[in-house]
Amino acid sequence: MDLPERIEAGMQLSLRFATANGCPPLFAKAIRHAVFPGGARIRPKLCLAVATACGDSDPQAADAAATAIELLHCASLVHDDMPCFDNAATRRGQASVHAEFGEEIALLVGDGLIVAAFETVARETMHAPRLTAPLIATIAKAVGSPYGLVAGQAWESEADINIDQYHRAKTASLFAGAVSTGALASGGSPQDWLPLADALGSAYQVADDLYDVIGEGGSMGKPVGQDARNAKPNIAIRLGIEGALKHLRTMVDSAADSVPECPGRDAFRAMIRNEATRLMPKKLAASAA
Amino acid sequence: MDLPERIEAGMQLSLRFATANGCPPLFAKAIRHAVFPGGARIRPKLCLAVATACGDSDPQAADAAATAIELLHCASLVHDDMPCFDNAATRRGQASVHAEFGEEIALLVGDGLIVAAFETVARETMHAPRLTAPLIATIAKAVGSPYGLVAGQAWESEADINIDQYHRAKTASLFAGAVSTGALASGGSPQDWLPLADALGSAYQVADDLYDVIGEGGSMGKPVGQDARNAKPNIAIRLGIEGALKHLRTMVDSAADSVPECPGRDAFRAMIRNEATRLMPKKLAASAA
Repeated sequence: MDLPERIEAGMQLSLRFATANGCPPLFAKAIRHAVFPGGARIRPKLCLAVATACGDSDPQAADAAATAIELLHCASLVHDDMPCFDNAATRRGQASVHAEFGEEIALLVGDGLIVAAFETVARETMHAPRLTAPLIATIAKAVGSPYGLVAGQAWESEADINIDQYHRAKTASLFAGAVSTGALASGGSPQDWLPLADALGSAYQVADDLYDVIGEGGSMGKPVGQDARNAKPNIAIRLGIEGALKHLRTMVDSAADSVPECPGRDAFRAMIRNEATRLMPKKLAASAA
Repeated sequence: MDLPERIEAGMQLSLRFATANGCPPLFAKAIRHAVFPGGARIRPKLCLAVATACGDSDPQAADAAATAIELLHCASLVHDDMPCFDNAATRRGQASVHAEFGEEIALLVGDGLIVAAFETVARETMHAPRLTAPLIATIAKAVGSPYGLVAGQAWESEADINIDQYHRAKTASLFAGAVSTGALASGGSPQDWLPLADALGSAYQVADDLYDVIGEGGSMGKPVGQDARNAKPNIAIRLGIEGALKHLRTMVDSAADSVPECPGRDAFRAMIRNEATRLMPKKLAASAA
């Protein structure tokens, strides 16, 4: 199986457990809606690419980590779209979970996805007990408090926001979790891959901010101009589109340069440039490539 | 340390990690507000009591499980109190998290507590890798979908609600998680303790329903009459107060009877009767004891 197939198979497996016989039917439908069809699946792809570069000695553990990372990403999107945050009616080109199923179910779908993420790692690493705690601790650090996704989101409610700490927690942390768990699952060294995660996290944040300003829907499929409306920090508003594009090019170069020595280094660098282009709003992709 | 001291120490330790240097200050304050002061801490007490009855061979693992169970219980209360669910302004005699800190922060506090729960187990079982996956899988089953707390809550949004499945998932499942992890952490047999969890879960659900109808605040400290207002299933409304009290007495007897053979069986049974009385609305406690 290629990486996208492994990712979808892992997501399907976890959702089969979460929606097994006895699950409230509406909730089962809603949790699937939150996960399928997916977006670019960039974080689990990165996790598995790093695992592959490190030899992929335990594909079951790597798949579990990749799945958990993406389930948590989906959870954050569901909660992020809710009325008290972005109040977004659409996501990935379809109705957001709360718009389709109501706020109660959306809140629970997010909670359920967080639980399913950790459950997946526990279930799929029973054969390799030495991996369970490090993988779960790494993933929890990436999404929790004080340095993960939840903390990043919480910075938006602070009167005095530290924008670097905010972006690091809200975006870079999950990229760090993806590369670290990919390495851990395959006996590699997580530290070697962190500079790549940092650069990719920054690049992705700029791309996300550009999407918000110039629109187009694209792979993120969410409404335009939300950040200005919600007075959220946005690099493309701060630096202008040209400035943000320049920053993005630097970040992508830096990401490609920071792939550590490994057998498939050239292929990995090519993949990064390719994914980076794919994530950019199409009308800008050519000029930023 | 006695059990309540162990529990508070465990909760403090987890919160120290979650609110470490770099945490958004408002979020740090809110997550502490969600956890301290605690309620009756009945689930972690039960977890540690079972661990003790099984020999308490790994108190660090048992403490981690007890802490995780209570963090998840606190998370469920924070999300449960939010406007889209119970819209409760108070909890445990103080303002609920969303009433004090806003909905955004309340949503994130719940998410952060879920992550912190699993992080706690991973961090505190690094010395005993064989325990990590079983403990986390057991806890995830108790709180996730299809059979745990999240699914229980989700049943409330179904047009056709199965009330036994609903109560089992919403209340009994976390009691099952508490006894199972207490046994697992100490080399005991989780299955032996499940009948106790079932009976206690049912008793607790009836007590909760009675509180909702006759009020008093008490250890749950939440507003009265919410279930009727929100058209939620409530045994004390369905059977009447006398009927519900009779059911409660049967459940407490059944719980005490279902303590399996173990060195401190009599003490354990006494503790159950004592806790059961303590949880009941004071004006009913005498007649139900």
